[in-house]
Amino acid sequence: MVWKIIGFIVLAEAGLLLLPALVAAIYRESSVWSLIITAAVCAAFGGLLVLLIKPKSRTVYAREGFVICAMGWLVMSALGALPFVISGEMTSYIDAFFETCSGFSTTGASVITDLSAFSHGILFWRSFTHFIGGMGVLIFILAIIPNVADRSIHIMRAEAPGPVVGKLVPRMKDTARILYLIYIGMTVLECVMLICGGMPVFDSMIYTFGTAGTGGFGIKADSVASYSPYVQWVIAVFMTMFGINFNIYYLILARKIKAALSSAEMYVYLGIITAVTVTVAVNISSLYTNTGDIVRNAFFQTASVMTTTGYSTADFSLWPELSRGLLFVLMFIGACAGSTAGGIKVARVVILAKSAGRELRRLIHPRAVNRVKFEGKRMNDQAAAGVGNYLVLYIGCYLLVFIILCFDKLSFEENITAAASCFNNIGPAYGRLFAGYADYSGFSKIILSLAMLAGRLEIYPLLLTFMPSTWLRK
Amino acid sequence: MVWKIIGFIVLAEAGLLLLPALVAAIYRESSVWSLIITAAVCAAFGGLLVLLIKPKSRTVYAREGFVICAMGWLVMSALGALPFVISGEMTSYIDAFFETCSGFSTTGASVITDLSAFSHGILFWRSFTHFIGGMGVLIFILAIIPNVADRSIHIMRAEAPGPVVGKLVPRMKDTARILYLIYIGMTVLECVMLICGGMPVFDSMIYTFGTAGTGGFGIKADSVASYSPYVQWVIAVFMTMFGINFNIYYLILARKIKAALSSAEMYVYLGIITAVTVTVAVNISSLYTNTGDIVRNAFFQTASVMTTTGYSTADFSLWPELSRGLLFVLMFIGACAGSTAGGIKVARVVILAKSAGRELRRLIHPRAVNRVKFEGKRMNDQAAAGVGNYLVLYIGCYLLVFIILCFDKLSFEENITAAASCFNNIGPAYGRLFAGYADYSGFSKIILSLAMLAGRLEIYPLLLTFMPSTWLRK
Repeated sequence: MVWKIIGFIVLAEAGLLLLPALVAAIYRESSVWSLIITAAVCAAFGGLLVLLIKPKSRTVYAREGFVICAMGWLVMSALGALPFVISGEMTSYIDAFFETCSGFSTTGASVITDLSAFSHGILFWRSFTHFIGGMGVLIFILAIIPNVADRSIHIMRAEAPGPVVGKLVPRMKDTARILYLIYIGMTVLECVMLICGGMPVFDSMIYTFGTAGTGGFGIKADSVASYSPYVQWVIAVFMTMFGINFNIYYLILARKIKAALSSAEMYVYLGIITAVTVTVAVNISSLYTNTGDIVRNAFFQTASVMTTTGYSTADFSLWPELSRGLLFVLMFIGACAGSTAGGIKVARVVILAKSAGRELRRLIHPRAVNRVKFEGKRMNDQAAAGVGNYLVLYIGCYLLVFIILCFDKLSFEENITAAASCFNNIGPAYGRLFAGYADYSGFSKIILSLAMLAGRLEIYPLLLTFMPSTWLRK
Repeated sequence: MVWKIIGFIVLAEAGLLLLPALVAAIYRESSVWSLIITAAVCAAFGGLLVLLIKPKSRTVYAREGFVICAMGWLVMSALGALPFVISGEMTSYIDAFFETCSGFSTTGASVITDLSAFSHGILFWRSFTHFIGGMGVLIFILAIIPNVADRSIHIMRAEAPGPVVGKLVPRMKDTARILYLIYIGMTVLECVMLICGGMPVFDSMIYTFGTAGTGGFGIKADSVASYSPYVQWVIAVFMTMFGINFNIYYLILARKIKAALSSAEMYVYLGIITAVTVTVAVNISSLYTNTGDIVRNAFFQTASVMTTTGYSTADFSLWPELSRGLLFVLMFIGACAGSTAGGIKVARVVILAKSAGRELRRLIHPRAVNRVKFEGKRMNDQAAAGVGNYLVLYIGCYLLVFIILCFDKLSFEENITAAASCFNNIGPAYGRLFAGYADYSGFSKIILSLAMLAGRLEIYPLLLTFMPSTWLRK
């Protein structure tokens, strides 16, 4: 059953590849063939898997759900890397794999040093992977393959970003469709607003994909810096919006405004963005001459890092230490659960902080009754312990990636921020890595690719897939 | 009652100050007066507190225990800083306070740039604070003030390093005495072994104090590098020994060898030291010509960082990135609970790792019974949650210190390692800070001083003392 579903996923990828092929055809580029060949390979491979595999059981348990999730993304990235190599625009398959993992995981880290050498079709595919990855390709699959939908609660659990996605409507299939429509609606809105601001249509689509998936791939070496302040403001606002839990948009659509406005997580999220923007603005005020520039740059970079997008309007790697330090810490927090962003997620941070605060109060007043509430619900010890365990695994994986990077020849600051940036799906890191990851060795790039996928899938799927006991029968 | 006990603590400090005064007198140094004057101030202040305060209640609850603990160390550091300033050997009181906090918290971070300008008496006092701090001055107080002993379980709880000190013998007073005797015995043993190795007597005492308290103050600019390999080996082995839970020595003394050898924490601790030593040795092998030097330097630095002592035989801030990265991660782990070391402690790390592993297994086999054991006892959810909460507060405090340091003018690498080094009571940090903390501003030094004390007291006492609700009556 696992491989059959992966077959469906690969078939879907074949279909998705036709869109960039169309773009390449419009621009009359030779890269169109690399995209069509890859689509054919995907179609053949996926078709074989779907047709030949007769599953013994159609049940998908949590274990299988996690494996489908991890293997699905790995296979998609491995196949999605082909156009880069077949077109001859990238010479190393490892580099192409890194680039595709970065795309599907909506990280936005790149090893490309000269973007101008790439064709429109390939650049479109590169950014389109953000869009696909953003909302989770499996949710996409769920919405279009009805016969899998009913027993796919476990896949959803592994895929959905964050702890509190919850069931919006009883049926999983409908949920996925609603989230997907909101996602597409916001994407179209941003694209139209960018085009209205005088941005070329192709650029608008590229940057909209990057914003929607909170990814960060662009088509200019300086990211968003050379576009007009209007464009920068639009992107900054949409980054912030794509960092909010999609449940809230659903509630607004359903006219449940009161429920939408009662989300504690959203207020904490917006509060952090505001506080950091103000601090950074004061900190960088000497670098710019007018207040508009200061506020725009502070807000853009804060929103970009907090939502784990990774666009930039300035090289914040060169900013004063306070801003650099704050943005480094923000990298780990990430945006709201149920959004397209990576990171630990605001909801988890709030739960952890509340739980720790309760411990402090318990020490002072051992006999007082201390109940902790979150989003109106009482939090039990088990929920808090679950989030605590997640944090431990998160830190463990992060430190492991950092230590492995230390085998390479880059500096302490570069390694520690690269691990943070890739694991939290942000993109740029400090030092040489602000411009790209080309300096790392092939081995480090593979580790970073896995880190990006692990971070994107909230660790568990990838960890479990590589644990021997997952593959053993009881 | 809180202030009365602090009075006793200050009186004890007055007595302890007489020992360095004696050293200064032997060397016929003028600094003897600064030490005697401070002793007199302590005696007067402590005597006043003890005599004048008539406590309404003699009961010490957890809340009061934490406050006594935090205030006691703050007052001791504030008074202990006086000799540095009165003798004229340091001009800034903030620097002297930083140095004393670093001493009592057994951190070993220093702002002194030229140690040769200091008199023997002052240097002795500086290192003696490590010895006092090492085992916890309050345990000391417990052993000599019998009338406080019986109801002091709460102070002990706040003071004792680590989660599993446990009651060795039923009566607290006897426990403290036994631990104290083991501590003194090992200290004398190390000192004798160093003297036998040809180290001058004064130097031997200084470095023994630094090792016993896992502090790290020395009297040479290059720490231990200029001493013979024999001396370096003795110090390295004793650092490792002072990082082991003192319960184990007690069990050995009581001829309960089997119980002593069943400590899971000790094996993990020694395992980590061995693994890191081997990795670092391979990593630095090109820097030295013979194998003995390689192994000794790798082992010494690993043991020094793991036990949070902070001595060095080489500037590991300049070592290859892999060694630097590993040692940075070790900074946070620290040594065993129930030892004189700082850091999160191996026991906690093991509990967290086991709890996280259980979560992973639960995801694969949701219905399997997963019991986690530690040191032979079954671990319940509440214990795991408690350690998880500790970790959250630990990370929160650490990041806060890091962000505050970013206001200063040092680099990212310096700030992030300085916060780790001080909060975990190690001492040296990377970059310019390997030699000392003189470059930080007065404000940063005060923050780092508080971080050292907070880390030493396992966060809770200092956090609670600064929380308004602690001071409010219910």
